[in-house]
Amino acid sequence: MEKYVYSFFEGSKDMRSLLGGKGANLAEMTNIGLPVPPGFTITTKACARFYDEGKTLWPELKEEIKEHLRNVEEKLGKTFSNEDNPLLFSVRSGAVFSMPGMMDTILNLGLNDTAVKGLAKSTSNERFAYDSYRRFIQMFSDVAMGIPKARFDSLLEDMKSKKGVTLDTDLDADDLKRLVEQYKDVYKDEMYEEFPQDPMKQLELAIQAVFLSWNNPRAVVYRKLNDIPHDLGTAVNVQSMVFGNMGNTSGTGVAFTRNPANGENKLFGEFLINAQGEDVVAGIRTPSHIDELKNIMPEVYEEFLEITKKLEKHYRDMQDIEFTIENKKLFLLQTRNGKRTAEAAINIAVDLVEEGLITREEAILRIEPNQLNQLLHPTFNEKSINNAQIIAKGLPASPGAASGRVYFTAEDAVNAKSRGERCILVRQETSPEDIEGMVSAEGILTARGGMTSHAAVVARGMGKCCVAGCNDIRVDEESKVIKAKDIIIKEGDYISLDGSTGTVYLGDIDKVLPELSGNFGKFMDWVDSTRRLKVRTNADTPRDAAQALAFGAEGIGLCRTEHMFFDEIRIPAVRKMILSKTLEDRKKALDELLPMQRKDFYEIYKVMGERSVTIRLLDPPLHEFLPTKEEDIRALAKSMNVDYDELKDRVEGLAEFNPMLGHRGCRLAVTYPEIYRMQTRAIIEAALDAKKDGVENIKPEIMIPLVGHKNELKYVKGEIVEEINQVFEERGESIDYYIGTMIEVPRACVTADEIAEEAEFFSFGTNDLTQMGYGFSRDDAGKFLNDYEEKNIFEKSPFEVLDRDGVGKLMKIAIELGTKTRPDIHLGICGEVGGEPSSVEFCHSIGLDYVSCSPYRVPIAKLAAAQAVIKSK
Amino acid sequence: MEKYVYSFFEGSKDMRSLLGGKGANLAEMTNIGLPVPPGFTITTKACARFYDEGKTLWPELKEEIKEHLRNVEEKLGKTFSNEDNPLLFSVRSGAVFSMPGMMDTILNLGLNDTAVKGLAKSTSNERFAYDSYRRFIQMFSDVAMGIPKARFDSLLEDMKSKKGVTLDTDLDADDLKRLVEQYKDVYKDEMYEEFPQDPMKQLELAIQAVFLSWNNPRAVVYRKLNDIPHDLGTAVNVQSMVFGNMGNTSGTGVAFTRNPANGENKLFGEFLINAQGEDVVAGIRTPSHIDELKNIMPEVYEEFLEITKKLEKHYRDMQDIEFTIENKKLFLLQTRNGKRTAEAAINIAVDLVEEGLITREEAILRIEPNQLNQLLHPTFNEKSINNAQIIAKGLPASPGAASGRVYFTAEDAVNAKSRGERCILVRQETSPEDIEGMVSAEGILTARGGMTSHAAVVARGMGKCCVAGCNDIRVDEESKVIKAKDIIIKEGDYISLDGSTGTVYLGDIDKVLPELSGNFGKFMDWVDSTRRLKVRTNADTPRDAAQALAFGAEGIGLCRTEHMFFDEIRIPAVRKMILSKTLEDRKKALDELLPMQRKDFYEIYKVMGERSVTIRLLDPPLHEFLPTKEEDIRALAKSMNVDYDELKDRVEGLAEFNPMLGHRGCRLAVTYPEIYRMQTRAIIEAALDAKKDGVENIKPEIMIPLVGHKNELKYVKGEIVEEINQVFEERGESIDYYIGTMIEVPRACVTADEIAEEAEFFSFGTNDLTQMGYGFSRDDAGKFLNDYEEKNIFEKSPFEVLDRDGVGKLMKIAIELGTKTRPDIHLGICGEVGGEPSSVEFCHSIGLDYVSCSPYRVPIAKLAAAQAVIKSK
Repeated sequence: MEKYVYSFFEGSKDMRSLLGGKGANLAEMTNIGLPVPPGFTITTKACARFYDEGKTLWPELKEEIKEHLRNVEEKLGKTFSNEDNPLLFSVRSGAVFSMPGMMDTILNLGLNDTAVKGLAKSTSNERFAYDSYRRFIQMFSDVAMGIPKARFDSLLEDMKSKKGVTLDTDLDADDLKRLVEQYKDVYKDEMYEEFPQDPMKQLELAIQAVFLSWNNPRAVVYRKLNDIPHDLGTAVNVQSMVFGNMGNTSGTGVAFTRNPANGENKLFGEFLINAQGEDVVAGIRTPSHIDELKNIMPEVYEEFLEITKKLEKHYRDMQDIEFTIENKKLFLLQTRNGKRTAEAAINIAVDLVEEGLITREEAILRIEPNQLNQLLHPTFNEKSINNAQIIAKGLPASPGAASGRVYFTAEDAVNAKSRGERCILVRQETSPEDIEGMVSAEGILTARGGMTSHAAVVARGMGKCCVAGCNDIRVDEESKVIKAKDIIIKEGDYISLDGSTGTVYLGDIDKVLPELSGNFGKFMDWVDSTRRLKVRTNADTPRDAAQALAFGAEGIGLCRTEHMFFDEIRIPAVRKMILSKTLEDRKKALDELLPMQRKDFYEIYKVMGERSVTIRLLDPPLHEFLPTKEEDIRALAKSMNVDYDELKDRVEGLAEFNPMLGHRGCRLAVTYPEIYRMQTRAIIEAALDAKKDGVENIKPEIMIPLVGHKNELKYVKGEIVEEINQVFEERGESIDYYIGTMIEVPRACVTADEIAEEAEFFSFGTNDLTQMGYGFSRDDAGKFLNDYEEKNIFEKSPFEVLDRDGVGKLMKIAIELGTKTRPDIHLGICGEVGGEPSSVEFCHSIGLDYVSCSPYRVPIAKLAAAQAVIKSK
Repeated sequence: MEKYVYSFFEGSKDMRSLLGGKGANLAEMTNIGLPVPPGFTITTKACARFYDEGKTLWPELKEEIKEHLRNVEEKLGKTFSNEDNPLLFSVRSGAVFSMPGMMDTILNLGLNDTAVKGLAKSTSNERFAYDSYRRFIQMFSDVAMGIPKARFDSLLEDMKSKKGVTLDTDLDADDLKRLVEQYKDVYKDEMYEEFPQDPMKQLELAIQAVFLSWNNPRAVVYRKLNDIPHDLGTAVNVQSMVFGNMGNTSGTGVAFTRNPANGENKLFGEFLINAQGEDVVAGIRTPSHIDELKNIMPEVYEEFLEITKKLEKHYRDMQDIEFTIENKKLFLLQTRNGKRTAEAAINIAVDLVEEGLITREEAILRIEPNQLNQLLHPTFNEKSINNAQIIAKGLPASPGAASGRVYFTAEDAVNAKSRGERCILVRQETSPEDIEGMVSAEGILTARGGMTSHAAVVARGMGKCCVAGCNDIRVDEESKVIKAKDIIIKEGDYISLDGSTGTVYLGDIDKVLPELSGNFGKFMDWVDSTRRLKVRTNADTPRDAAQALAFGAEGIGLCRTEHMFFDEIRIPAVRKMILSKTLEDRKKALDELLPMQRKDFYEIYKVMGERSVTIRLLDPPLHEFLPTKEEDIRALAKSMNVDYDELKDRVEGLAEFNPMLGHRGCRLAVTYPEIYRMQTRAIIEAALDAKKDGVENIKPEIMIPLVGHKNELKYVKGEIVEEINQVFEERGESIDYYIGTMIEVPRACVTADEIAEEAEFFSFGTNDLTQMGYGFSRDDAGKFLNDYEEKNIFEKSPFEVLDRDGVGKLMKIAIELGTKTRPDIHLGICGEVGGEPSSVEFCHSIGLDYVSCSPYRVPIAKLAAAQAVIKSK
């Protein structure tokens, strides 16, 4: 019979996928002798079976749970419903990957009309006992049975106002006893039965609730956001209760073994005296710094410090630890690898290497490539920031700089983002319901909560700028204003946040690019010496090229020449070219464009020096350069001094049913070879000019897009080589060059052996290859891809993460065939997934020579490339 | 050194690719002892080298030609420029595949100021000699040097009007001598040099002209039309002249060993007394029937008859023979396998088998599958034809029935066709310039020319209805009218042609389908017992299905359900369904459609009986069912009683940038599974109903379109299987069924192993697979595919003939992977190329189980399938 329940002493940290992260770590801590309240874990497999069984707990499982319960009873000498010293439990979820705040937790389970008396007796604190009972009923009703919290809250408010007090703590034991009765009535009213007095029944309902919460909408959103598969399931941890709220010799807290914001090797954390664990995380009271504990309970502090060091050494990583002090006795409730900012991640990884705890390769694997995003984004411009008006100061909860319009609900933030606005989500405090709003916002500002509050933890995970616990402001979510002393900020007004200092500014402030140095430089050196894949960038301008160089790009993998055509000054010549009726007129218009294109390329060569630069010839259909609305056509006709009807006819003649599959790419050059000839001339002349001006070893790479048949490439190549030879003859000098092609048409993949006869390099255009391979128009697929993700047909949109099985298979076929013809063919990728870590890993595995991505993603791609090497060992 | 010139006695009929068809046959006839005027052939390889040498004849070739010339001189005892008996030649092209009328010919080469005297002396006919010289100068100037014919013609007209005569034959020798001088002046005027007197120079220029004519536009068009590769090149045949125009004991003619219209085993042909060969083919004089020759020159006729029998036995096929009688002496100038109608082809093939001359397999290979088209097309409805007004009678030049609007130029016919009109091309006589017009027309009517005139020969080759030599009408090409006695037919008026009787009718006459029996039935039985591939049809209605059965279809490979949705009575319910805002409303609208779809399927099952029927679920994007123009949307809003703005929003919301790659196929069912569920219910209920009504062994094949990922199919299949089980439960009975998928998305091909886990059959949708594989939108590619063909990038549009190397490769990958998972997976094709012979051959070679094509193409596909078996042996 399969074992579905493990006592903590039966597990270990390596059983993560069975016990969940929390359960595995509770087991590990138990086994290395740390003070962990005893308990047991119900496995993730039980969760899967729970769903298979039609969302019920089956009899054998119940038996197994009871057995483990008896075990804990024996160990603690406590029993359920005991009038003297009752056994109480916390019930928590514990997924394989940490999902903070996503899953529901129930504390004090086991309390009933009998046990409450036992709790009062054993703690000599009747008020505490009934307060616990009241909280338990509310939490259980809310979490396990779905009864609205508000029904209980309003009774509490009534009670307080009847007594004429404002704080919960002003209510006495009798008040709370009455409340308990009222709460039980609410339960009965909602559920048509009495509040369950049988602790075993409470436990079963609680376990079911945890299992069910795996599929609650916010958990689903979180998993999507963090690439966690939906079929993993969650474990349930049932742990005997300890109380941090038994008075001033009790307390609870959360600590990181190192600073999670900057990585500093110093204990970092917070605690609350006389509180239960959830109070710290929820951010309702502002807690004290962990160092304070030294003054209040020095022995406990010392013990804790020692334990944190032991844990860090044991786990060989920075730990995020939850603890409770019950009457001066320290208990550990959780440890896990701590979430951290990218800056902290780099610093900790480098420090751990230097402390001899981990190897360089381990350090490289420790950083999630996407996390580097945080380091690569702008900070405020020094000058602008000095002149900016400071509104308030809060906690520097997640570093970075962000500006945007203020919105007060997640929904408004999502809408603003979809309108193309940058926005800042401002909340009293955030909750899991706000996740999508947080994703849409540039930054998050909360009035309450500490460094480990929901807003802070989630924002750091997302690499999003966050200022939390900003007591200086009052957030009025109803009327949608922020009041900061005499300043009033309304919905839609601009503010700026500095997540590294906690400062909130008025207005939209300029930003500058970060400098990358110190540990980051050291780390990237390790990365560079580990990876095999080269990393180039997609850049169309000298500015982008320079930016990419600063981020370590090793060349340009895709320079899109059409972007140069859209320029306001040039588009008239482009349009003249398109509307030419004769070859002669078209050539004249192209002659106007030639010097401009030549200058573009010259400047890029000057920036890039001898690094490779792959220039793609014109790709979009010509109608993209023409207006489509009547008034715009009229205006253009006027400005070009041509007949409106004639122009309209031409615009309509160029319109296409499926422009994606239309007259574009090399097909344009089959019809109008003179366009590519002009561009080629510009490239070669620019290279010769740059060479003359001292740039050495330029070897232009000319890339022909949308080739599906060898003959297309052969024809176009014939034309442009003729042009190149003409330039060489005119100039009396020559230069080496490569001619290659995008591989972005499925047919090109399966005939790559033929195409390689003509192409010196392949660059996989995975955007189009995905569109054509799947038959998905990216512009239209948005309408149905949501349904695909909802119905679990796709884990991820293939436009975000390279579809290895399909598009990747086409790539593999192309590589196999292409290298058969030309074993030294140079292979790269320039689709957007070229900067997505798991796609980079795939590109490494199939033997590409380089990936090319946007400048900001260069370090990310490099890290992913290095990780790919290590993982494939 | 490579041999580029072959004397006739050095060649044989098996050297066709080197000597061209004409050269090989002249050699063969020479070697079997037939009277062929001596000569030699310059090879097709010489043509290729001619282009490589920059379109010049190189010295070694000239030497080789001279050697062979000397050979002929010796054999005939004649020499160039001889004053008594000069050597004269014809120079003709001779490509590997017969290209009638396409290539240029020069006769009487060798004539100059000296030789003309020798010719006069040897023939004792000065007038004849100078007429020949005059003709030669004109032909040489026109064909070899590109001097407009009109410049000579106007001089001839001047001469005639000066003499007051109307016929060329009224001019005497002196007139012609003067004309020769005038013609030479024209030549000098145009070419800035004297007319070449050196016969060797004449010969070289003539050979060059033939080589160059390989690439003249009409030859290029013909090759395109007939799938002849452009790189084959042409040979040149240089043959000593014989004269059919030396008086009444001379003549020239063309004959077929059997009737090329119906296959009757009886000599069939025409001749002209006192004429040169080109006069017969050009159709300028109406010739006599070959039987007449028996009366005029009985010995010659007998000799000819014997030779024709010998040739037919030798070549084991019906021959098309050109002959000339010079002073009662018979010479053969050409023999080749004769072109014939489909009816004749079948009859001849079956007869030859029965005569023991060829095997059944040879007979099967003898019929070009596309030729069957002729047999499968309608003839006039008996009743309608009895009431129709006969305008005129001409020669039954190419059988069939055609109706259409009258147009008088090839260009007008092409334009009419492109507007979607059916048209009849009416010409005085046709010439190679009319080819594209003939392609566009339903039928061809000429006023002049015989059964072997250009119009007749080309029309038979195309399988197009043609009435030629219709002396009853006067065609006024200038004012675009036909006059037939008192009837005047203007451009755009309808006429009808019966190509089997030569009758021309007024108006647009009903047609009926042909009955296929007799030799056709026998032939198709041989075909059926030879082929391995099954042949199904694409049919959406019971009517199409019945038609296809009549043509021998073995099942339905593609029944497109959307065609049932476009029906005028149904589309309101379809639109209601699309515009539904809730699932409930949509289901209600679908409930309206259910009985209609069920009836569709029921009727198809009744027609098809136990044959396989593959039904494809809804494929097109929903916006195809909605109007797009404002006025249509307004009208629809009114009729549906919905708000215009709301409807417009919905229409716009459904619009797509690239509908080809949009929300269609199985993607619709991911979003709206209820649509496929309704269709599936209709299919299963119809099958159960038909079974109850006596149709046995129905096993519905449900086909899910546009699958690219296994999970799409899995999800959709899950939905429809649930629906099927529901129907079974409701009915209390069940039926076997298959669920399979179209393979039309490139990704499906490369992941076919995964998809085959869910699919019981694959049907290749090569239309979409070509669109996505190439990235060509068929709706847009028309704009640039012409450029592709012109620039020799494609031989053929991949939408017409399956692209074996690309799309075919994807198919092979899919088959390899699919059968790995499911070795017995059933494989078919339902794209339009499924009825194109060379594509069918490919489908055979890659192991498909069946092809599916339009009803009319079923016999064609069967024949192609049988040929594939024989060819692959």
